[in-house]
Amino acid sequence: MVTNQILTAIKNRRSIRKYTKDDVPNEAIDTVLEAGRWAPSGLNNQPWKFAIIKDKDIKQKLSVLTESGRIVKECNACIAVFYSLPEGYNRDKDILAIGACVQSMLLSAHSLGIGTVWLGEILNRKSDVNKLLKVGDDCELMAVIALGYPAQSPKSSRKKLAKLIIKNL
Amino acid sequence: MVTNQILTAIKNRRSIRKYTKDDVPNEAIDTVLEAGRWAPSGLNNQPWKFAIIKDKDIKQKLSVLTESGRIVKECNACIAVFYSLPEGYNRDKDILAIGACVQSMLLSAHSLGIGTVWLGEILNRKSDVNKLLKVGDDCELMAVIALGYPAQSPKSSRKKLAKLIIKNL
Repeated sequence: MVTNQILTAIKNRRSIRKYTKDDVPNEAIDTVLEAGRWAPSGLNNQPWKFAIIKDKDIKQKLSVLTESGRIVKECNACIAVFYSLPEGYNRDKDILAIGACVQSMLLSAHSLGIGTVWLGEILNRKSDVNKLLKVGDDCELMAVIALGYPAQSPKSSRKKLAKLIIKNL
Repeated sequence: MVTNQILTAIKNRRSIRKYTKDDVPNEAIDTVLEAGRWAPSGLNNQPWKFAIIKDKDIKQKLSVLTESGRIVKECNACIAVFYSLPEGYNRDKDILAIGACVQSMLLSAHSLGIGTVWLGEILNRKSDVNKLLKVGDDCELMAVIALGYPAQSPKSSRKKLAKLIIKNL
């Protein structure tokens, strides 16, 4: 099977939950957001908004809102990804687009040597996150991405491709 | 701003709606599905299933179910992406993961020189698509990806990053 840097990144990117103390430069965070910005969306409606959280006090308060609190505290920065409801046109399709946007951010971070983990459990406290970050209720929290330089090299696994292909017509 | 092949692919991938007559080899389709397989998902539940449609007669019948019928007829192959409902744990999070999976497939195809377009309007006829493909109702259609070698180089645009960043803390 052929390979290239993109295929390798897609396959080798792992969720990183332990980080060095090194600072992720603002320019790198902008590069990650820039990758998110170019994701595809239905009708090109781009229904996403981003909040960058580097402030230690706010990260501390955010950490209390999730079972992944240690990660939020120890990572260098978080990107909260919101669904901008007034820009939405179809909830399923908009959420698919936001998933594509998150994946572009995870892959771009990986390409810069930055580890990430996609936090979902924190959605249980989405309205508290909005309050903490002073984000209006026209934006619905969809994901928090924790970022930092990796201090681990975890393995993962996936189902076999043959189990995922239900028709070959 | 730094760049690399991954950032370039994310930024330069466009929706391709016109194709050459060249055949997309089965091996390339497998490489694309392989990329989708490695997408992240909540609890690593991987709630996606794929149907490959290369058969001209089935593509013709599929084309009748969407306003994008010309694309479905003219492309070389389609990948229908389903949400495997019995494997789901949270609809929003599962759909986000499927969006990540689709984006990995679009980027991997782009990296192989294959054009794609993510078709969403066809979801209006999702139960008819299931019937045509003989897919059970435990699988809900989420997207159809049309694939073929590009016969166009379209441009696109996105909102400015400054408009997407609602907080920088």
